[in-house]
Amino acid sequence: MSTITLMTDFGLKDGNVGVMKGVINSLSPSTQIIDISHLISPQNIAEAALILTRSAPYFACGTIHVVVIDPGVGTKRRPMAARIGNQFYVGPDNGILSMWLEQVELTNQDVSFYQLDQPQYWLPIISHVFHGRDIFAPVAAHLANGLSLEQLGTPFHDPVRLSLPHPERTTAGWRGQVIHVDHFGNLSTNIRREELETARLLEVQIGETTVVEVVKTFGDRKPGTLVALLGSTGNLIISVVNGSAAEHTGAQVGDTVEAIMQ
Amino acid sequence: MSTITLMTDFGLKDGNVGVMKGVINSLSPSTQIIDISHLISPQNIAEAALILTRSAPYFACGTIHVVVIDPGVGTKRRPMAARIGNQFYVGPDNGILSMWLEQVELTNQDVSFYQLDQPQYWLPIISHVFHGRDIFAPVAAHLANGLSLEQLGTPFHDPVRLSLPHPERTTAGWRGQVIHVDHFGNLSTNIRREELETARLLEVQIGETTVVEVVKTFGDRKPGTLVALLGSTGNLIISVVNGSAAEHTGAQVGDTVEAIMQ
Amino acid sequence: MSTITLMTDFGLKDGNVGVMKGVINSLSPSTQIIDISHLISPQNIAEAALILTRSAPYFACGTIHVVVIDPGVGTKRRPMAARIGNQFYVGPDNGILSMWLEQVELTNQDVSFYQLDQPQYWLPIISHVFHGRDIFAPVAAHLANGLSLEQLGTPFHDPVRLSLPHPERTTAGWRGQVIHVDHFGNLSTNIRREELETARLLEVQIGETTVVEVVKTFGDRKPGTLVALLGSTGNLIISVVNGSAAEHTGAQVGDTVEAIMQ
Repeated sequence: MSTITLMTDFGLKDGNVGVMKGVINSLSPSTQIIDISHLISPQNIAEAALILTRSAPYFACGTIHVVVIDPGVGTKRRPMAARIGNQFYVGPDNGILSMWLEQVELTNQDVSFYQLDQPQYWLPIISHVFHGRDIFAPVAAHLANGLSLEQLGTPFHDPVRLSLPHPERTTAGWRGQVIHVDHFGNLSTNIRREELETARLLEVQIGETTVVEVVKTFGDRKPGTLVALLGSTGNLIISVVNGSAAEHTGAQVGDTVEAIMQ
Repeated sequence: MSTITLMTDFGLKDGNVGVMKGVINSLSPSTQIIDISHLISPQNIAEAALILTRSAPYFACGTIHVVVIDPGVGTKRRPMAARIGNQFYVGPDNGILSMWLEQVELTNQDVSFYQLDQPQYWLPIISHVFHGRDIFAPVAAHLANGLSLEQLGTPFHDPVRLSLPHPERTTAGWRGQVIHVDHFGNLSTNIRREELETARLLEVQIGETTVVEVVKTFGDRKPGTLVALLGSTGNLIISVVNGSAAEHTGAQVGDTVEAIMQ
Repeated sequence: MSTITLMTDFGLKDGNVGVMKGVINSLSPSTQIIDISHLISPQNIAEAALILTRSAPYFACGTIHVVVIDPGVGTKRRPMAARIGNQFYVGPDNGILSMWLEQVELTNQDVSFYQLDQPQYWLPIISHVFHGRDIFAPVAAHLANGLSLEQLGTPFHDPVRLSLPHPERTTAGWRGQVIHVDHFGNLSTNIRREELETARLLEVQIGETTVVEVVKTFGDRKPGTLVALLGSTGNLIISVVNGSAAEHTGAQVGDTVEAIMQ
């Protein structure tokens, strides 16, 4: 039994996610379909790249991730599939894979990329504006049914890559950026566990705010306290216990964060 | 393995969708359940009718669509099931089928309607206010398990039909209406591909706004440009590239749209 | 084939629910996963307790309910699993079970509680902040695969219980509280069918508002009418037909409600 995950910026109202599931289910009835998110901010490829990279390690070998954040649909941007380590990607070639590729290349896992160009595995009619339904869903279903990437497309070697921000060393510690604001208002940064292991974290500065409470988990301080801690994926996060650090600080994705270390 | 889809106006917070899935899963453990939408505007039968009509063609033969937009629950409105071509509907008899019926009747597919009146296939206790859980979910599960419509109800021939707005010919082209505003703020109209094939589309007027850019897909123009194009279901849509036409124009469902043709 | 349900306060944007499903699916590929809600208000254990209690009776024998409303994650609060009648719970020991326990104890069903302390059934690395992914999802998957509670933990007898508000007798009838406001704006109270069977309900008072229309279902009155009726789980609810009683009355969870009876 295969597993296909779906991530889109379609929202949950209009039925478009359901339609993609209908296409997959028609072609591959025993495949399990798991939603990762359909509330990616419209056209926000970087956000999808981050969530895909954080999610994929928790899925089984052979899982097929379909991601449709696709502002270039119907233009010359390539439809693609890829093998990333022991999992698969199906979607547009527009940078969604950038961060995941960086991570798997660190451990020398195999990656390979295929331009989808075999319309016999697509729906019979291809719209200019919904390749998630017309190309990516049926290709993922055929992959789940055992077709190879070689049958579905032609190899290429230069997928689009986003320029990802990385934290830099400062005299006081590390300077990074807010890369995600979650449902609770936690601010996730690109400063990682590995960077913080170089010395003891004293405090974190973000805009006008200094976070002085460095803790292991939320419940270590009273509700309302502003704290810094390692999030569940090993990134430095800034939180308000049982509250919203986004509201407290006014910070947004892209804002500078300074980790001050001993 | 059968497939049941669910569409409701219940929202995703209160657990009512989960409860319907629990009922189906108890009676038919191997059935796949696929969500189409649970964010239909409260009591908006026309919106559900549109999304059902657009979604059904992408589902497999035998799929059972359960739709619970049911302001008349517990009154004399009939609970019903239907065969629509090679798929099924289970839900209230209140017009949700109107648009789908129009479409399948164009191609002379078989349709038949049954009033649900066999309580041995319902939950043991029937509330006055949640037939989605008490009647429609168990009936759909029994249908998925192989019971016939004839076992579940009694045939009837006059399902409720909404009066659907259709575009009309003008001297300049076609006059239609906005019939849906999607998650991205795209305005979908009831003017269809077939109407637009009668001549070349020059521009589209909606309220005070004239849309002069007629394109094939979003990426054909720069972000922020107001464009008109064919949507993925063959309807004329008005969009702002990487933006919201609903915000840009202030238009709403029901507003008049003029397609000006050569 | 087993069934696992999920309820969290994670929202639907960040992929955390998808990650939990990935963990379950990796360990137990044939298990069905059903969402109950991921829009529980942040840290609102009482809300989750109510929705769990209302949902569980509609699920099959053997269903495993994973609930992650977990402000105490990574502190000394116990991770637990439980047998509740013929179903199971996996999640934190923080009171989520309180209301369900009250209900099953009324009918003398068996309950038993286990502190999860067998890390060989967890993910290899345990974060301080996401036990839903690292402990509860894998434990639920192993339970679905046939492991016993005895293999996963050590029995205990004193799960955390919330103090739940109960309605009280007044000279005029019953005094209770609003315990939930649903997606439609219906106000659900803790006054139940059994209390209302003691006499005839004349009217309901909430704040400055008196509800004089006591009906069986919404469609018994015209849109816009304020009505009182029995909800689908046997609780007295206050509704506006095709509208929002929450908006109409301004009432919130915890507000006092008076049922005036003959």
